[in-house]
Amino acid sequence: MATKEPIITLSAGPVAAYPAVMRALSRPIGYDYDRHFLEFYEAVNRKVTQALRSSSPALILHFEPAPGLEAAAASLIGPDDVVLNLASGVYGKGFGYWSARYNKELVEIEVPYNEAIDPAQVEAAFKKRPDIKVVSVVHHDTPSGTMNPVKEIGQIVRKHNALMLVDAVSSWGGMDIHPEESCADIFVTGPGKCLGGAPGLTIMAVNDRAWKHMEANPKAPRASVLSLLDWKDAWRQDKPFPFTPSVAEVNGLDGAIDLYLAEGPETVWKRHALTAKACRAGIKAMGLSLWAAREEIASPTCTAVRVPDGLKDDDILAAARSLYGVVFSSGRGETKGKLIRIGHMGLVAEPIYAVVAVTAFGGALKKLGRKVDVGAGVTAATAVIDQARA
Amino acid sequence: MATKEPIITLSAGPVAAYPAVMRALSRPIGYDYDRHFLEFYEAVNRKVTQALRSSSPALILHFEPAPGLEAAAASLIGPDDVVLNLASGVYGKGFGYWSARYNKELVEIEVPYNEAIDPAQVEAAFKKRPDIKVVSVVHHDTPSGTMNPVKEIGQIVRKHNALMLVDAVSSWGGMDIHPEESCADIFVTGPGKCLGGAPGLTIMAVNDRAWKHMEANPKAPRASVLSLLDWKDAWRQDKPFPFTPSVAEVNGLDGAIDLYLAEGPETVWKRHALTAKACRAGIKAMGLSLWAAREEIASPTCTAVRVPDGLKDDDILAAARSLYGVVFSSGRGETKGKLIRIGHMGLVAEPIYAVVAVTAFGGALKKLGRKVDVGAGVTAATAVIDQARA
Amino acid sequence: MATKEPIITLSAGPVAAYPAVMRALSRPIGYDYDRHFLEFYEAVNRKVTQALRSSSPALILHFEPAPGLEAAAASLIGPDDVVLNLASGVYGKGFGYWSARYNKELVEIEVPYNEAIDPAQVEAAFKKRPDIKVVSVVHHDTPSGTMNPVKEIGQIVRKHNALMLVDAVSSWGGMDIHPEESCADIFVTGPGKCLGGAPGLTIMAVNDRAWKHMEANPKAPRASVLSLLDWKDAWRQDKPFPFTPSVAEVNGLDGAIDLYLAEGPETVWKRHALTAKACRAGIKAMGLSLWAAREEIASPTCTAVRVPDGLKDDDILAAARSLYGVVFSSGRGETKGKLIRIGHMGLVAEPIYAVVAVTAFGGALKKLGRKVDVGAGVTAATAVIDQARA
Amino acid sequence: MATKEPIITLSAGPVAAYPAVMRALSRPIGYDYDRHFLEFYEAVNRKVTQALRSSSPALILHFEPAPGLEAAAASLIGPDDVVLNLASGVYGKGFGYWSARYNKELVEIEVPYNEAIDPAQVEAAFKKRPDIKVVSVVHHDTPSGTMNPVKEIGQIVRKHNALMLVDAVSSWGGMDIHPEESCADIFVTGPGKCLGGAPGLTIMAVNDRAWKHMEANPKAPRASVLSLLDWKDAWRQDKPFPFTPSVAEVNGLDGAIDLYLAEGPETVWKRHALTAKACRAGIKAMGLSLWAAREEIASPTCTAVRVPDGLKDDDILAAARSLYGVVFSSGRGETKGKLIRIGHMGLVAEPIYAVVAVTAFGGALKKLGRKVDVGAGVTAATAVIDQARA
Repeated sequence: MATKEPIITLSAGPVAAYPAVMRALSRPIGYDYDRHFLEFYEAVNRKVTQALRSSSPALILHFEPAPGLEAAAASLIGPDDVVLNLASGVYGKGFGYWSARYNKELVEIEVPYNEAIDPAQVEAAFKKRPDIKVVSVVHHDTPSGTMNPVKEIGQIVRKHNALMLVDAVSSWGGMDIHPEESCADIFVTGPGKCLGGAPGLTIMAVNDRAWKHMEANPKAPRASVLSLLDWKDAWRQDKPFPFTPSVAEVNGLDGAIDLYLAEGPETVWKRHALTAKACRAGIKAMGLSLWAAREEIASPTCTAVRVPDGLKDDDILAAARSLYGVVFSSGRGETKGKLIRIGHMGLVAEPIYAVVAVTAFGGALKKLGRKVDVGAGVTAATAVIDQARA
Repeated sequence: MATKEPIITLSAGPVAAYPAVMRALSRPIGYDYDRHFLEFYEAVNRKVTQALRSSSPALILHFEPAPGLEAAAASLIGPDDVVLNLASGVYGKGFGYWSARYNKELVEIEVPYNEAIDPAQVEAAFKKRPDIKVVSVVHHDTPSGTMNPVKEIGQIVRKHNALMLVDAVSSWGGMDIHPEESCADIFVTGPGKCLGGAPGLTIMAVNDRAWKHMEANPKAPRASVLSLLDWKDAWRQDKPFPFTPSVAEVNGLDGAIDLYLAEGPETVWKRHALTAKACRAGIKAMGLSLWAAREEIASPTCTAVRVPDGLKDDDILAAARSLYGVVFSSGRGETKGKLIRIGHMGLVAEPIYAVVAVTAFGGALKKLGRKVDVGAGVTAATAVIDQARA
Repeated sequence: MATKEPIITLSAGPVAAYPAVMRALSRPIGYDYDRHFLEFYEAVNRKVTQALRSSSPALILHFEPAPGLEAAAASLIGPDDVVLNLASGVYGKGFGYWSARYNKELVEIEVPYNEAIDPAQVEAAFKKRPDIKVVSVVHHDTPSGTMNPVKEIGQIVRKHNALMLVDAVSSWGGMDIHPEESCADIFVTGPGKCLGGAPGLTIMAVNDRAWKHMEANPKAPRASVLSLLDWKDAWRQDKPFPFTPSVAEVNGLDGAIDLYLAEGPETVWKRHALTAKACRAGIKAMGLSLWAAREEIASPTCTAVRVPDGLKDDDILAAARSLYGVVFSSGRGETKGKLIRIGHMGLVAEPIYAVVAVTAFGGALKKLGRKVDVGAGVTAATAVIDQARA
Repeated sequence: MATKEPIITLSAGPVAAYPAVMRALSRPIGYDYDRHFLEFYEAVNRKVTQALRSSSPALILHFEPAPGLEAAAASLIGPDDVVLNLASGVYGKGFGYWSARYNKELVEIEVPYNEAIDPAQVEAAFKKRPDIKVVSVVHHDTPSGTMNPVKEIGQIVRKHNALMLVDAVSSWGGMDIHPEESCADIFVTGPGKCLGGAPGLTIMAVNDRAWKHMEANPKAPRASVLSLLDWKDAWRQDKPFPFTPSVAEVNGLDGAIDLYLAEGPETVWKRHALTAKACRAGIKAMGLSLWAAREEIASPTCTAVRVPDGLKDDDILAAARSLYGVVFSSGRGETKGKLIRIGHMGLVAEPIYAVVAVTAFGGALKKLGRKVDVGAGVTAATAVIDQARA
């Protein structure tokens, strides 16, 4: 390639995979009709279920979570369903487009993309439209780096007997969020973000309420890549796969889940949180602004930094890469050009990478002519780390 | 796992991956917005294009070929299209179900599943229905191990100005079949069969005629996992990916394509053909029958053997596995129970594995009480090899 | 490379590594002064000790067993030691040359290289020379594929209060042989043969008697690659390594030992034995002669076949490789040209590879103009397998 | 393991291996008597020769460079040789002990271990002792992080018709040092330092003068792990290996050499130099002292920092590891306790790791109660980087 590989990637995903995941990806390709593979697949499914803290078997789909969410929309949302879509960012907004293909009517609550949905808004929506059947929400709207209060929203949705679909792709595995305690009926995530795995699978938790609704949906796809129902029992050794699973990705997932469970979820979340906290302290100490309206809604897995006036995001990204070999993510859609995202996911959710991020971010701005005190940034970041690990 | 891994897998796919592919799968996960990855992706695409001997850029879809074929049907076949589906096996028949979701009318030619489509039938169909717009055909209908004369059919389809969609998933890479010389407008294959790669991607060649038809199709999916159009220009460095590519699978594909091009396609095809020929000689010498009505239509990438009367396919498979650790494939759908398939794809498309197959197959029958002369089988198989390599 | 990789290697070592070993070899390189690596190294040492069924901690040397044996000779044999060297093959004979560099006097029992040492000869030697202090013996003299009755010899040596050094490089891990039950004071082996690992380490069991003798040896090397004493306590976390360990090899050893312990040593030995037995049945059924004077002394890990009169070993090897891609080993030194060795070690110690071996061996002879009934060979080989697994 | 893996290892070696090296280590284990492996080995040898910029074929020994140096001493230094050993550090001093085992007389020049040998001292030694036959010198004495002026010394040695043995283990591959331009007759290095490979091989360049001297040495070891002569022609396909090569290590070396040649040696050296320069700027800006008496003699591959008065090296190392997961090296022997070494070798010879080093070093001191301005350190380090890459 003409361009050298980055030295350190601090993206919002796909992220650098753990070495153990890379080794898992290189395992022999099992034959999907062989007993050994069937046992292995079920074992992986059980471990994913355990990691999801779910009482229903996990659902693995063999493509990444964006089409996974499309499939969830296609399968869950029927022609009689009124859907409340909660849009606090590009991904939340985007889900509405898929929903609209299938639903009877789309109701939407939209807030500025540096804000979070207020549970009271959801309560109000139900008051106005008690016929809402499905609520969709993104937990961490990655293009904004902001989080919605899914647990609070979930209780409201459940109370109104509606179904909730949660996109937790870039938060699960990096913080304390699970399907059942957040009342999610469909909970969508994947191995390519906080788990430090490869991006090529969707992981879902689907409960009985959701399965029943899908089974009753006359338009739910079958014999289709969009079908969740096709895969409902695929984890069982006595059931054939609807189509060939992505064996290498399952191998990789196995490696990623093993790491997660062995390190201990609480330990994993803690280092994600500390890395984010240190990073933000450093960013702010350099006089920069977080994108999130309030730091409480900033994700522990991603720090979105507002692009300083007069600068272009692409120039900052290019400078950080050429000076230090450090790669960040830009915004997406509406947020493109307005913010830069520093990922804290998986392997790089370690405090020292907050220092790397602050240095590369600050250094890039200096290269573009801004007066930035990188030393102050690093001092602030390390103060957070030192205190937490005193 | 309770069950031991097989020693040698001679399946009809997924197949054992080459060691170099396994190493490629373990490469670092690139970030899909980074310049280095974009250059890499384009380079892989170019090599795939070269291997396809196609003049249009290859199309890579990020799931395995079964949904890849569904996506092709969804994208290509419009509400005004009369489709001629050629069904000589389970997969050919199955494509008709997808087609029927989108087409105006489905015309079908069906032959027994141990037979091949006769080009004259296609010519006759066009005479009767000159409004046929799309013809779909499976080159190697894997559940039968039989091949259709796609090149001859292609000329007829082209002459009638219709579009032809070819499923060459389990033949391409193992024999001399390419999109342009077979007049395929959409040619669907993947890395998980003869290329000895992992099963998690679809590779397509799509020509301008097909792209135009899709662009004119009012129902062609967009912003969907079923969309081919979304991915048309994804290989270009200046275009974002519609959704995150399966990075690890692309790494693996790169490894597989490099091996294929380095060994030389003609050399690869030759060892597939010789392995199949030796295997069949051995199978016949043991008094067994090929499933294919005529050996000329048996695929060089898979030998389907008729299950001897009075025996169950699963018992034969289990005996071969327990005695020798050798795994074969059963039939699928209509052919389940009637045949057993010995794969000759990728790594195991080497003549010595014909001996392994004959031994394990014959030995399994002996275990089940049949009188089988395994020695005669091996003698016949090796005679073919010895003569070819004299 | 101009020459294609073999398809199947049935050598007497180095042998094909298990996929899990190859993955282990690709683990990150630990830093040998870091606590994590020190803990890992000790853990590996413990597992090796367990696999050796030894009550003293295993000794790992960071080069392959041939220099490992030289180091053992240099460390153990002092200027006052009379050494009895038992030579039933090239490796046994060779050890005498190293011994002669260090000992006071070398006494040798030599038998034809297709024969085994008779314990009575050892008893007689002690009668004649009660001053024998060290006895050296090769358990499986790989260049001959023959075994010596080490357990019986060991009891005699112990009775006479001498020390015994056993080379079990190519037998341990493939059959029931361990240091303590064979009264070996130094037991030398490695991961590159029956363990299916990489060849780059020596594994030893050294008991207190041997350590004491070394400590009392005024010429025992120190601060040298030839020193065993330097490494005595290297497994302990509080001791520095005498020089940098071969980290990747230790990673690979960890993978190999885990496989061995997980599969169960008895199971591993059983498949080695069955493969050898099936192979020999096939070889004999083709009218060929085993090299070993009696089949009882033929190793379960290697079958040495006498080169038929009028043929050259290299021609047979070349024919098997060009026809089938199968690689065997020739003899070494005295046995070069007289025999060909078929390895049954590690991954290929599976009965189906006996069939591969018989086919390739017989086919090679046919190519060279000999009348060989390969069918009869395979029939005989499979009869052994079928009976054992009935 | 009880202890977590480090996050970032900045050791003086073994160092983190490049991902491509880890993949190379996982390649199949070739059989050392097979033609394919022999071709591969020769090809690797050629590439190593090219990287050494040597006109004689490289010599690969199958253990790490410490015993490699012992073997060089044993092979080169004969009973009639007067040896001048240049000791500017622990490794230089140590070589003298090996030399003394073989030489007629050992003459030594020793300077303080934070200093370098002055070529004038060597000239003076020859004046006094014109019978000096061999001069041994360490280019980068790793336990001190200091370099000797090998090129200047080499010219003097050559002029006096003596032989020079250079230990360039931890400098070659990271800076512009090669055997012929430094008049080294034996030049010893390895893949486990600046090449970012695994530590398990020795790489040497040996010229005809050295070979002749060894061949004339009556005590030069043969049939021994200490023999260089045994391996002289081992790279040739028509010569057997003296003992089994460490196949996995050769695979890894191949991967490491390919990376080095592909990136371009000059580019590699440049990033080593810049990383070291930035690191030292940061270290000094925090008020710390370099170990080296003058910065000119500090190696571009390792920064040795004087342990501040009143602190213990182990406490600093432990603090850096627990706070940031960053691992450094302590001193060795005489330098243990007096300095801490920050490695800049291979993968981590990238400027951003200078920032990591400065942060972790400074942070560790702060944890131990010292007033350290980490911000100033990072500012100074980045200033160096920013200027170099402006």
